[in-house]
Amino acid sequence: MCSRDTASNQLIDYKNNDSEVQREITTSSGTPVGVKDAIQTVGPRGPALLQDFQFLDEVMHFDSERIPERVAYAKGAGAFGYFMTLRPETLHALLMYFSDRGTPDGYRHLHGYGVHTYRMINASGETQYVRFHFKTDQGIKNLDARRCEELMSHDPDYAIRDLYNSIKKGNYPSWSMYIQVMLNEEAKKCRFNPFDVTKVWPQKDFPLLPVGKIVLDRNPTNYFTEVEQLAFSPAHMVPGIEPSPDKMLQGRLFAYGDSQRHRLGVNYMQIPVNCPYRVNVRNFQRDGAMTVTDNQNGAPNYFPNSFCGPRESPRALGLQTCCPLSGDVYRFMSGDTEDNFSQVTDFWTYTLDNCGRKRLVRNLSEHLTEASQFLQERAVKLFTMVHSDFGRLMTEALNTARISKF
Amino acid sequence: MCSRDTASNQLIDYKNNDSEVQREITTSSGTPVGVKDAIQTVGPRGPALLQDFQFLDEVMHFDSERIPERVAYAKGAGAFGYFMTLRPETLHALLMYFSDRGTPDGYRHLHGYGVHTYRMINASGETQYVRFHFKTDQGIKNLDARRCEELMSHDPDYAIRDLYNSIKKGNYPSWSMYIQVMLNEEAKKCRFNPFDVTKVWPQKDFPLLPVGKIVLDRNPTNYFTEVEQLAFSPAHMVPGIEPSPDKMLQGRLFAYGDSQRHRLGVNYMQIPVNCPYRVNVRNFQRDGAMTVTDNQNGAPNYFPNSFCGPRESPRALGLQTCCPLSGDVYRFMSGDTEDNFSQVTDFWTYTLDNCGRKRLVRNLSEHLTEASQFLQERAVKLFTMVHSDFGRLMTEALNTARISKF
Amino acid sequence: MCSRDTASNQLIDYKNNDSEVQREITTSSGTPVGVKDAIQTVGPRGPALLQDFQFLDEVMHFDSERIPERVAYAKGAGAFGYFMTLRPETLHALLMYFSDRGTPDGYRHLHGYGVHTYRMINASGETQYVRFHFKTDQGIKNLDARRCEELMSHDPDYAIRDLYNSIKKGNYPSWSMYIQVMLNEEAKKCRFNPFDVTKVWPQKDFPLLPVGKIVLDRNPTNYFTEVEQLAFSPAHMVPGIEPSPDKMLQGRLFAYGDSQRHRLGVNYMQIPVNCPYRVNVRNFQRDGAMTVTDNQNGAPNYFPNSFCGPRESPRALGLQTCCPLSGDVYRFMSGDTEDNFSQVTDFWTYTLDNCGRKRLVRNLSEHLTEASQFLQERAVKLFTMVHSDFGRLMTEALNTARISKF
Amino acid sequence: MCSRDTASNQLIDYKNNDSEVQREITTSSGTPVGVKDAIQTVGPRGPALLQDFQFLDEVMHFDSERIPERVAYAKGAGAFGYFMTLRPETLHALLMYFSDRGTPDGYRHLHGYGVHTYRMINASGETQYVRFHFKTDQGIKNLDARRCEELMSHDPDYAIRDLYNSIKKGNYPSWSMYIQVMLNEEAKKCRFNPFDVTKVWPQKDFPLLPVGKIVLDRNPTNYFTEVEQLAFSPAHMVPGIEPSPDKMLQGRLFAYGDSQRHRLGVNYMQIPVNCPYRVNVRNFQRDGAMTVTDNQNGAPNYFPNSFCGPRESPRALGLQTCCPLSGDVYRFMSGDTEDNFSQVTDFWTYTLDNCGRKRLVRNLSEHLTEASQFLQERAVKLFTMVHSDFGRLMTEALNTARISKF
Repeated sequence: MCSRDTASNQLIDYKNNDSEVQREITTSSGTPVGVKDAIQTVGPRGPALLQDFQFLDEVMHFDSERIPERVAYAKGAGAFGYFMTLRPETLHALLMYFSDRGTPDGYRHLHGYGVHTYRMINASGETQYVRFHFKTDQGIKNLDARRCEELMSHDPDYAIRDLYNSIKKGNYPSWSMYIQVMLNEEAKKCRFNPFDVTKVWPQKDFPLLPVGKIVLDRNPTNYFTEVEQLAFSPAHMVPGIEPSPDKMLQGRLFAYGDSQRHRLGVNYMQIPVNCPYRVNVRNFQRDGAMTVTDNQNGAPNYFPNSFCGPRESPRALGLQTCCPLSGDVYRFMSGDTEDNFSQVTDFWTYTLDNCGRKRLVRNLSEHLTEASQFLQERAVKLFTMVHSDFGRLMTEALNTARISKF
Repeated sequence: MCSRDTASNQLIDYKNNDSEVQREITTSSGTPVGVKDAIQTVGPRGPALLQDFQFLDEVMHFDSERIPERVAYAKGAGAFGYFMTLRPETLHALLMYFSDRGTPDGYRHLHGYGVHTYRMINASGETQYVRFHFKTDQGIKNLDARRCEELMSHDPDYAIRDLYNSIKKGNYPSWSMYIQVMLNEEAKKCRFNPFDVTKVWPQKDFPLLPVGKIVLDRNPTNYFTEVEQLAFSPAHMVPGIEPSPDKMLQGRLFAYGDSQRHRLGVNYMQIPVNCPYRVNVRNFQRDGAMTVTDNQNGAPNYFPNSFCGPRESPRALGLQTCCPLSGDVYRFMSGDTEDNFSQVTDFWTYTLDNCGRKRLVRNLSEHLTEASQFLQERAVKLFTMVHSDFGRLMTEALNTARISKF
Repeated sequence: MCSRDTASNQLIDYKNNDSEVQREITTSSGTPVGVKDAIQTVGPRGPALLQDFQFLDEVMHFDSERIPERVAYAKGAGAFGYFMTLRPETLHALLMYFSDRGTPDGYRHLHGYGVHTYRMINASGETQYVRFHFKTDQGIKNLDARRCEELMSHDPDYAIRDLYNSIKKGNYPSWSMYIQVMLNEEAKKCRFNPFDVTKVWPQKDFPLLPVGKIVLDRNPTNYFTEVEQLAFSPAHMVPGIEPSPDKMLQGRLFAYGDSQRHRLGVNYMQIPVNCPYRVNVRNFQRDGAMTVTDNQNGAPNYFPNSFCGPRESPRALGLQTCCPLSGDVYRFMSGDTEDNFSQVTDFWTYTLDNCGRKRLVRNLSEHLTEASQFLQERAVKLFTMVHSDFGRLMTEALNTARISKF
Repeated sequence: MCSRDTASNQLIDYKNNDSEVQREITTSSGTPVGVKDAIQTVGPRGPALLQDFQFLDEVMHFDSERIPERVAYAKGAGAFGYFMTLRPETLHALLMYFSDRGTPDGYRHLHGYGVHTYRMINASGETQYVRFHFKTDQGIKNLDARRCEELMSHDPDYAIRDLYNSIKKGNYPSWSMYIQVMLNEEAKKCRFNPFDVTKVWPQKDFPLLPVGKIVLDRNPTNYFTEVEQLAFSPAHMVPGIEPSPDKMLQGRLFAYGDSQRHRLGVNYMQIPVNCPYRVNVRNFQRDGAMTVTDNQNGAPNYFPNSFCGPRESPRALGLQTCCPLSGDVYRFMSGDTEDNFSQVTDFWTYTLDNCGRKRLVRNLSEHLTEASQFLQERAVKLFTMVHSDFGRLMTEALNTARISKF
């Protein structure tokens, strides 16, 4: 028998007839798939290949999954149980969400992170890996669980209104920007995969270096044009910043633009809010639905040509890196199969204080208590691998919850 | 001053003010572009990387360029001149189009080619490179230039009707399929780039091996559903066939699917004509506009899960190759900069007979005579590099045409 | 100065510079609009004309307002104040929402209404007007305000789960269907506009006649395919039922189909859940994105033709009505400007009991207390016109709320 | 057995099994259709009703029939035969196309017509019906059939280049604009339906009144943005011009905008070339894909409201007409069933001279000779009803053609 906890199917029984179970996963064109969550890279930590049809076939469908007026939502204790128990590399991030960090008191009182690893190039063409941090200058402030529930039913716009009003009054929130730097040689020798989003770079080894400040000093004038039409993408990088082979970043570099094209249309970069440098954009991308520029007037639409049109940029050539790469081209698992626990143990032991641990256990157990018994047991096993105290406290909390049900 | 010969702008003057000329090409997000026609690969002959935003930014716009009811057309003697003179690697293909091969007598009397290089894997997991050939069993038959013109104005459906009626009468056209095989070691030592679509693999070194036959034995029942809705893609490969690092193939693997999604919709593989094995397709691609399948009923839409749904395929794992790769990650020119002439010289000298050469010169000169004088001269220079006779005959033909104009 | 309470703009200040205020409303093509909410009909109670560009220009834009991944929401005490105070014809419906009827205990314990007036034709071709009623066989059951809040934050799926589980257990909910009938002559002499959705047909004059039962006996197997892809439209009428000239119905007959085409695609009727009689549908609607039928194979796509294809239906001819109509073609206000209060007074006096009135006043005052002072005053004036008690109780409730704020 | 001559199906056999033949036409929702080409109007010559689902269901599908990259074409001698023989009201227009008028020598040497009947309102609110004429100031010039064929195969851009170059050289082509006026009373008593596009208004009864001049003095700067993105619609009327109840116009008022939304997107009026008065457009049409205006900043998106935003236009109220209308609401045939021959007889007898008649007969017979024998015979019958000479000459021409085939 099947449970009910996937996103849009949450109320639907999973069919479980045997012939169905034995079916193999295929691509949309019917080719059997060996490992679903593997992507084709050059070596286990190297960049992804464009020829990976299995990956693109799936991600491009996913990017266009939504239709107008459809509202997606993901929830359910079963899906939650699944995340923790079958993909242990997600444990670190999950515990953060269920700690106080998951309930910030509005948008002004939380830190920001670039999440992925990037690469920076200096004027001499030397490269190093970086992570971006944005520390709130307003100080961290969290909501407790009770206050959250109250706001959910009475004031769902609490956080956005706080941000809007603060900016409107001239009380501009700001974030101090820092980078962590890892040299190419350090990356090669790093005991954990530095390109894995589920791993943090310990600040004692890679200290925060101050860079500057981000200040929010203007509210949007129209919510649709300036907020809903915003098209962010990690691939929109300024010269001097480049991607690392972080697998999740490699996928996102592609998926964001693909989603924006589906969501907003092929000329989404012509929407005023999306291109501050619009005036300087000259290239060979023409036509398509809703062309509202001059479409580069009478210039030829092919390159090279002997007539006119924009020219290649010598400056850009100077910034072009050339990096040796070697490895086996193979479908490597997208999740990191290496040590997924020691950083979580550090989080439990050093980052959280006693009260934080209690709140984490309470938040987690409130959700887990709704999941199937076998999922609860599997989860507790993982918590115990993080720290024996953690496993014990969760067992107690789940038992108490079970009793209070009857 | 600018000419008038690009596709949809063919009647428009190219603006040529100086400020415009000095603008630099950028991506859609405003980042300057160093070499427009370079793509990021692993080594000059290696596969393309998914992280190549410059390439994807351009190709994804191009794939969605068309809007409904828009008819694209590409022509103009200037554009033609450009192809030959600024991108000499196109010369070989161009001469074929202007020879008799460019005017086949219907679809039944021409050969087919896979164009790209692919890789095949045998049961023991060994790989080798291949090219596909489909030789018409009906024999080659061409139209001369005069007959072509007559059909263009009086009977534009000549070729398709011939094919339709032949099948309808039970006179099924067929093609014998052959492969050329190149071992991995041969590919490494090959004096020309075997992954370059503009190069042929000489049949004396890589003989045609017979494989089987393709027979067309059924006409479509409805033109829209079964012809206009067809979604071909070189990425739709059966197990045992894989892509080579052919740069143009690498781009097409992506671009075809992307175009089909734009043209037909995200669920284009659910259109009956596109998936003969529909009944067996089970995966985690759900929802999206016009879902007309059961959408896999109540199965969970995430993987892995502890409930039910299709399983990974052990058979597919067995076919998964693992190939060592090393090279510099760099933006390499998409065109091959190596010897682009010797195979063309062979075409002129050995493939064409005397009459074929005459017809080629006549066909070419008729078009070139419309191009600017400087393009004609540049073209003749290239023809002379192919063969001095070729250059001389073209000069004479162009002079004659010039005189007859006055 | 402007307030902040429209749907997607709720956090945005309304710009109020003078030049802006004096601008005139125009159509999208720039033609000035005299009365925005008027539509062109034949007489004030007659049907709408297809030539009404002002109306279609606006409604067709509205139908396509949403983009994928966009979630619309409408709220705000200001907008609420507006509805009651500037469009008094909405008062009746609003009070119903704020009475117990606005918080049913799930979907099984509420009545259904056809809302609009329709016309039925009998076998002899005689017509009469009808309204449809669906009375729950499970009995009415409502939630109180406190329970609602609790469910909003803890169990937002309460209602849908109740329905799902009830059907799953074989406890099928049902509704008894009734019609009210109004003869053509009665409609002509009716003191209120019987084609106005904001008016009820008094049951003492037009008694409920039992017709049959609707039983829900199957859950959807997939939420996306069978729920989110559902395309309802009041224009999908079976033979024997026809529209009345109800202005809102006239607009909806068009707007639903237009929205579905935007939302689901032009071939939305080919999605299995949308056409139970698909097998019998034969017409001249061909092609378009995602044609998954046989597209009527080789039949000609024009009519009449001398070959083959579906034929016109003599049965349908027999059901075709021919009704005399006369009136002035003019832009009449879409809202009814006649008596908008007496039915509301009846609702306050006869439909509600004392407890119901108290809950209505509490629910209303909780929302109104957030609106501008001038809107509150305007609203109280309207409530007083409904009944002096109503006005007095609202004044008291708003005063109490105001005091408790300080 | 079926023939092969519909648009995209031209190579496909029509299936003709009996069960298929007996199927009835239905709407997309499965309701049987009595008369396919009837639309619901107020009286046989009155305006169309918005509630006509049968019509809108079909036209809205048709408007979205095309998908990107699809090229539609309509041809075939059978379809041609059908037009003339089953819908005799098209005869007049068809003969014009097959006369010299069908082969103008470029765009500068032909007249323009508004085709439909419109209504104009003067400052005192009085209305009258009008037809628009645009007479070329360059003089009529036609191509003969032989020259046409030559251009088709050698110079398909002949006409557009002629127009482009003429404007570029400052040799601006112009057209003198005239109107024909018919008073309301004349319209009522008119022996032919003045709102029927297939009828001309005789100039002896309704003389041409000069109004002004249209001069083309600028070429587009970019073909895609300024030509392919143009969105014409007969519903885009300036104040003072209104539609007549011309059935085809009534349909086009709707269908053009609907097609533009499909073709270009919901915000097609924001494309610069489509709205010269963009700066003044203020209304309540917000959001939707590719909103590139300020979306009216922070103004409320509902009307009426108590805050700000554009106001209704008193000027527009003044121009609003109020016309009495009476008639039976019924599905009347879209084609006019009255006299469809006398104006064609006039065309043959008075408009054409002897040479013109000969060319008409030659052009027609060249096409008809490809149609089935029974269609040829049916056509000749119609030509004979136009004029006995016409029928006789066509018989002779068809016989000659038949003989020369053997």
